[in-house]
Amino acid sequence: MSGKLYGIGVGPGDPDLLTFKAVNILNNVDYIFAPKARDKDSNALKIIKDKVDYQDRLIELSFTMSKDKNKLNESRQQIASKIEDKLLEGYNCAFITLGAPCLYSTFIYIKEILKDREQLLEVETVPGVTSILSCAAGYNLHLVEAGDDLAILEAGFTEEKFKNILDNFNTVVILKPTTDLNNLLNILENQGLQDKMLLGSKTGFSDQFYIDNIDEIKKSKINYLSTLIVKKEGI
Amino acid sequence: MSGKLYGIGVGPGDPDLLTFKAVNILNNVDYIFAPKARDKDSNALKIIKDKVDYQDRLIELSFTMSKDKNKLNESRQQIASKIEDKLLEGYNCAFITLGAPCLYSTFIYIKEILKDREQLLEVETVPGVTSILSCAAGYNLHLVEAGDDLAILEAGFTEEKFKNILDNFNTVVILKPTTDLNNLLNILENQGLQDKMLLGSKTGFSDQFYIDNIDEIKKSKINYLSTLIVKKEGI
Repeated sequence: MSGKLYGIGVGPGDPDLLTFKAVNILNNVDYIFAPKARDKDSNALKIIKDKVDYQDRLIELSFTMSKDKNKLNESRQQIASKIEDKLLEGYNCAFITLGAPCLYSTFIYIKEILKDREQLLEVETVPGVTSILSCAAGYNLHLVEAGDDLAILEAGFTEEKFKNILDNFNTVVILKPTTDLNNLLNILENQGLQDKMLLGSKTGFSDQFYIDNIDEIKKSKINYLSTLIVKKEGI
Repeated sequence: MSGKLYGIGVGPGDPDLLTFKAVNILNNVDYIFAPKARDKDSNALKIIKDKVDYQDRLIELSFTMSKDKNKLNESRQQIASKIEDKLLEGYNCAFITLGAPCLYSTFIYIKEILKDREQLLEVETVPGVTSILSCAAGYNLHLVEAGDDLAILEAGFTEEKFKNILDNFNTVVILKPTTDLNNLLNILENQGLQDKMLLGSKTGFSDQFYIDNIDEIKKSKINYLSTLIVKKEGI
């Protein structure tokens, strides 16, 4: 009988924002797969290390960061095969992912690849606290109250698209702002939002910081793991 | 010296989706405030009851469900005063809320009222797993992968607004669908989305269920605590 695969959201960075469910499962599976970018430590692994004794059960996975779609797909297929092998041997496995598995996680690729293959494998997804929520919480900021809607965007959009979205949404969360920072800051200034925004860098991690000033952002070293919140009514 | 107020997200329903941080704080504060609609048990309280011994520390708060804005505001002001009194007496207090405090929670009103008052009170918000995330996870569904954006709407919108949003978003999450269900289902049918949606009722609670068929939704008794996910590419 095949093992079961758990996609586990380990939250935004603070180990205390792990859920009981995540830790229970991680302490009981046979193998824990931890994704990492080549040469860097796995952020997800840092989060669980004090609550989960993963010695001898850890398998680190180096995802290619290539922009070449074929190479990306090949790397994901290989990783999926590695996981599939363990499952077919009957082992229960967990794949850990920052934040929540259903939002922009590498687990999505793995689960979709396995779904397309012949073997019918049991999968369970365990949600976690996302960086969006920890960014807002760490500033005691609310994103939306009754009557409001929320847009969550990846940086890299055009000003025209952003204007269209601002017509319909009072609050916009922008993820991965460093991938398109100059363009993004220009758009915010053009739209008169330069003092109606908050950037949280690595919120949930111990080295988190916040900036609510666009000039300060330009001067700062912002981590890839950051979140930008725009509120038309101000922060 | 005044006490500190914690706004605690207790997650979507499953007690195991509580975070360690939430439980640690709840086990250490002097008072726990639990919001409830008159005559109903507090859902947030049900979630914590097995992990937190709140006996003698619990203060239940009955929020008015009136549609009269003055009455609503009056009720919230009274509740904020009740909490403020305990804080000014030096007690550390927690206010528990379903899901995450920054998304459509009653904690938002309390924190904003206290911010406007003269007393400077220390507030800390603790994020939790939201029903949106548990709805997706329970179906092994992902909401967005790299390159996608996400819209989160409260039911009650016009078809024109929804069409405009569909132009920009492939995935739309609709909260509180029961408040405007017939209109909402008509809009989804008009837009050809009747088989590209998933409704999760009370996801995270033990009596959760899913429906991915619009005719089935029409025949079912859907709980107020439900989430509807629309994906243009299908579920």
